[in-house]
Amino acid sequence: MSANEQLYEGKAKIIYTTDDPEIVLAHFKDDATAFNAQKRGSIKAKGEMNCTIAAHLFKMLSAKGIPTHFIDCPAPNQMRVKAVKIIPLEVVVRNIAAGSLCQQTGLAVGTVLPQPLVEFYYKNDQLGDPLLTRDRLFLLNLATPEQLESLTAKALQINEILSGFFNQCGITLVDFKLEFGLDKQPQILLADEISPDTCRLWNQAETDPDQRVMDKDRFRRDLGNVEDAYQQVLQKVLSTQY
Amino acid sequence: MSANEQLYEGKAKIIYTTDDPEIVLAHFKDDATAFNAQKRGSIKAKGEMNCTIAAHLFKMLSAKGIPTHFIDCPAPNQMRVKAVKIIPLEVVVRNIAAGSLCQQTGLAVGTVLPQPLVEFYYKNDQLGDPLLTRDRLFLLNLATPEQLESLTAKALQINEILSGFFNQCGITLVDFKLEFGLDKQPQILLADEISPDTCRLWNQAETDPDQRVMDKDRFRRDLGNVEDAYQQVLQKVLSTQY
Repeated sequence: MSANEQLYEGKAKIIYTTDDPEIVLAHFKDDATAFNAQKRGSIKAKGEMNCTIAAHLFKMLSAKGIPTHFIDCPAPNQMRVKAVKIIPLEVVVRNIAAGSLCQQTGLAVGTVLPQPLVEFYYKNDQLGDPLLTRDRLFLLNLATPEQLESLTAKALQINEILSGFFNQCGITLVDFKLEFGLDKQPQILLADEISPDTCRLWNQAETDPDQRVMDKDRFRRDLGNVEDAYQQVLQKVLSTQY
Repeated sequence: MSANEQLYEGKAKIIYTTDDPEIVLAHFKDDATAFNAQKRGSIKAKGEMNCTIAAHLFKMLSAKGIPTHFIDCPAPNQMRVKAVKIIPLEVVVRNIAAGSLCQQTGLAVGTVLPQPLVEFYYKNDQLGDPLLTRDRLFLLNLATPEQLESLTAKALQINEILSGFFNQCGITLVDFKLEFGLDKQPQILLADEISPDTCRLWNQAETDPDQRVMDKDRFRRDLGNVEDAYQQVLQKVLSTQY
């Protein structure tokens, strides 16, 4: 396959080949979707903001010993990453109850969990990314028990690093979604992105439950000032030492 | 509290007090609901049929060492049972993929599972009885780890007994839902009912995927002949030795 061929188009990114078969180029789009793409829109400059935030967070995680797919950014909305086979799991870490966890358990939004909760969802748009039990995950052969242990440990380690960093930014990391991929070895690499599209981030300077939201919930819930919130996250992330 | 007071009305049963505080009377209704009561109807003589089927199955399980809440039936649609505190879990055992498992995993209906799958759902109508992971179950304090182990072991043991019995009836036990309660000791007793309302039962003499259905799926999916199917299950259950 030659360079600059489109390999895959997702809801937020397009993946292209490069002249190196072990490297692909991720183009971050401004398109925004929610509720399994039932709601569609766009957020101005989201591609650039998310790509820059994700690059910064990947560099930080890498410096702290977490292997990621990140290589570099040839343009503000483009990221060169190692080609990996994505494990079809959305690994969600929750520190505070919000979103579907509240809808499905009756826990009040904002309930601080006694310990971080690591959950696995089946990355499958057609099925609506359903929650998986451990048994269902193995039934579908989505990971081996060893991989699941490794993913859980990595997710918790990443949570500790990210929570500490966002806290320094004056932001509470409520929950977030990770995706992992396997390289040729095969080694498990953190992949996809970490951005206000994939995290719930609450501004610690705000107490109002709507005002504090700095993530895609502003788009999901039509709270307004979506670009401003992403821009604020970008500024805080870039100006905070790790 | 005096006798004959209504303690609780569920979708399929009404529970009354008796003159013994440790015994309650379950009145089985003809009402049928599906999809979290979004679909409502009634099935003629369902109360009598389900009460009689459940009584027979409880007697069999009890004879094989499974403690149940069943005492006796003072009328064809009435069951005296031990008063228990219901554990708010729907314990589902699946032998063959059907229903929500297929919708949420993409497995084809009829896929024989490599081993029986025991799943826990939060018995909560307001939340739509959502699937629980082990972590969510503990987060909500719905059972202790010891209770969960015990419920899983009991569910698998009951599955073995029921599958064997239904097989003798010429019926395949596809999946079923159990509820358990705690008596005063507290001992875990099998409670609620086991009937075509709570099991998926496929007639082994039929190969057509709609014709073979002998359970509430006939009502859910408007397949017709609902009463006939329940009646057939009743006849087969009553005429089969255990």
